[in-house]
Amino acid sequence: MLFLVGLGLSDETDITVKGLEIVKKASRVYLEAYTSILLVDQAVLEKYYGRSITVADREMVESNSEEILRNAQTEDVAFLVVGDPFGATTHTDLVLRARELGIPVQTVPNASILSGIGACGLQLYSFGQTVSMVFFTDNWRPASFYDRIKENRDIGLHTLVLVDIKVKEPNMESMARGRIVYEPPRYMTVGQCAQQMIEVENDRQEKVYTKDSLAIGAARVGGLTEKFVAGTLEELCSADDALGPPLHSLVLLGRRTHELEMDYVRQFAVDKEKWDRIAKEEYGKQ
Amino acid sequence: MLFLVGLGLSDETDITVKGLEIVKKASRVYLEAYTSILLVDQAVLEKYYGRSITVADREMVESNSEEILRNAQTEDVAFLVVGDPFGATTHTDLVLRARELGIPVQTVPNASILSGIGACGLQLYSFGQTVSMVFFTDNWRPASFYDRIKENRDIGLHTLVLVDIKVKEPNMESMARGRIVYEPPRYMTVGQCAQQMIEVENDRQEKVYTKDSLAIGAARVGGLTEKFVAGTLEELCSADDALGPPLHSLVLLGRRTHELEMDYVRQFAVDKEKWDRIAKEEYGKQ
Repeated sequence: MLFLVGLGLSDETDITVKGLEIVKKASRVYLEAYTSILLVDQAVLEKYYGRSITVADREMVESNSEEILRNAQTEDVAFLVVGDPFGATTHTDLVLRARELGIPVQTVPNASILSGIGACGLQLYSFGQTVSMVFFTDNWRPASFYDRIKENRDIGLHTLVLVDIKVKEPNMESMARGRIVYEPPRYMTVGQCAQQMIEVENDRQEKVYTKDSLAIGAARVGGLTEKFVAGTLEELCSADDALGPPLHSLVLLGRRTHELEMDYVRQFAVDKEKWDRIAKEEYGKQ
Repeated sequence: MLFLVGLGLSDETDITVKGLEIVKKASRVYLEAYTSILLVDQAVLEKYYGRSITVADREMVESNSEEILRNAQTEDVAFLVVGDPFGATTHTDLVLRARELGIPVQTVPNASILSGIGACGLQLYSFGQTVSMVFFTDNWRPASFYDRIKENRDIGLHTLVLVDIKVKEPNMESMARGRIVYEPPRYMTVGQCAQQMIEVENDRQEKVYTKDSLAIGAARVGGLTEKFVAGTLEELCSADDALGPPLHSLVLLGRRTHELEMDYVRQFAVDKEKWDRIAKEEYGKQ
């Protein structure tokens, strides 16, 4: 059996009791470690589970799944995913390959950023499609997120923006010299995300949002050090110190934001007077 | 401290290790039991936790929260919520009242139907806003879901339809005679939901969807007996036997459904030939 086990959002005790029992008994334990991270190290997990863990990077999952699925017809293999197995990234490919090999699959759900973000005080019901923001480079500035946000905002909905993480990225210079050296991990911040959003609005000028649109920066959602900072996109450009360490994500408010949602989020506002003024002028409209 | 503890979707072992530790130590334990249910009885939970549980019905949470929050400035109170505390229903009111009383609040996230539904094979990224379907009566047929679905479908997105549950509803006849007698619990099925959707389309005639639109019926998502049935809304009207016991929910596909999503969902189709034909004609368009 292949078990896809969600680990939740924060630390080693966020695994479910069901998940923990599976991990303790499985023949092999893999940790998917390229789409998200927990706030604790692998060594902490290994000690807590009493098991050694093989870190599965993107290459292993996408190109070398035979190793993960080896003998899973008769043995139990646990594949651990931060958050929920169907959360930010699906592992449909791995499941399909398992099925082809006659391997039964069972999923153990857990908290996902898609529901955990509700802690900011916005109704999960009123979120539109989720978008992703990647690190822009000089010549790669994918802006499809802008069209998706436009669709959400046209009907008044909030948008959750998940931000890029770069783990185990090869250094290009070394690659050119025939050596593989990995860059240190990089986690996009709310400030970087807000800055890129403003840049794209400046390029496109379709007024999907402005630097004065209200948004919420979120850090370490679901953990004990969870932190929210609310403000305009411009204000969020300099909120990284207040938010602290990764992982970050951002929510852009929809104009249908209810008064009660606004009141709740207000407690996190950088500048409450400004928040109230923009909230009154621009939001709460059906 | 007030702890809002998510229980996950299925049975007693879906609680997180962190949540279980809180429940074991809390002074009092409440179970919110009117917006969703687990697939196991309260007695199973009590035995598993080694604690007695007070069931908190809607009236208690909404009108008698003083009891829940009593002494929570100095004692730990655990308020258990099926799924994720911020999932289908938020308990913002309770949190706000706790804050007014100077009671710190901590949330323990868990799996929600909003992410668990990803097991059907559709990308969670491509869901629009979530809607709710209530039991229609002769003179109460709220159809705001229809407008919300229209908004989602206009931009090609999937819609998760959460269905009504009626727990501890007073019998109207008895009430008129001055006695309170509760009706047995009722859980809406996918068949009833699909039927009501078709009725509203027949009333409104805006072609937001038709009886031939593709949808997925889901039952006991996240549990060992999880079951999906895919087909047209008309086919889903008679899929209740195949789906089995509650809880049910329904997903209406958006026209942006990707080929890979379609292939995955196909395994659940009542009539694969019909599924393929409609999928080819109507879906996968940007």
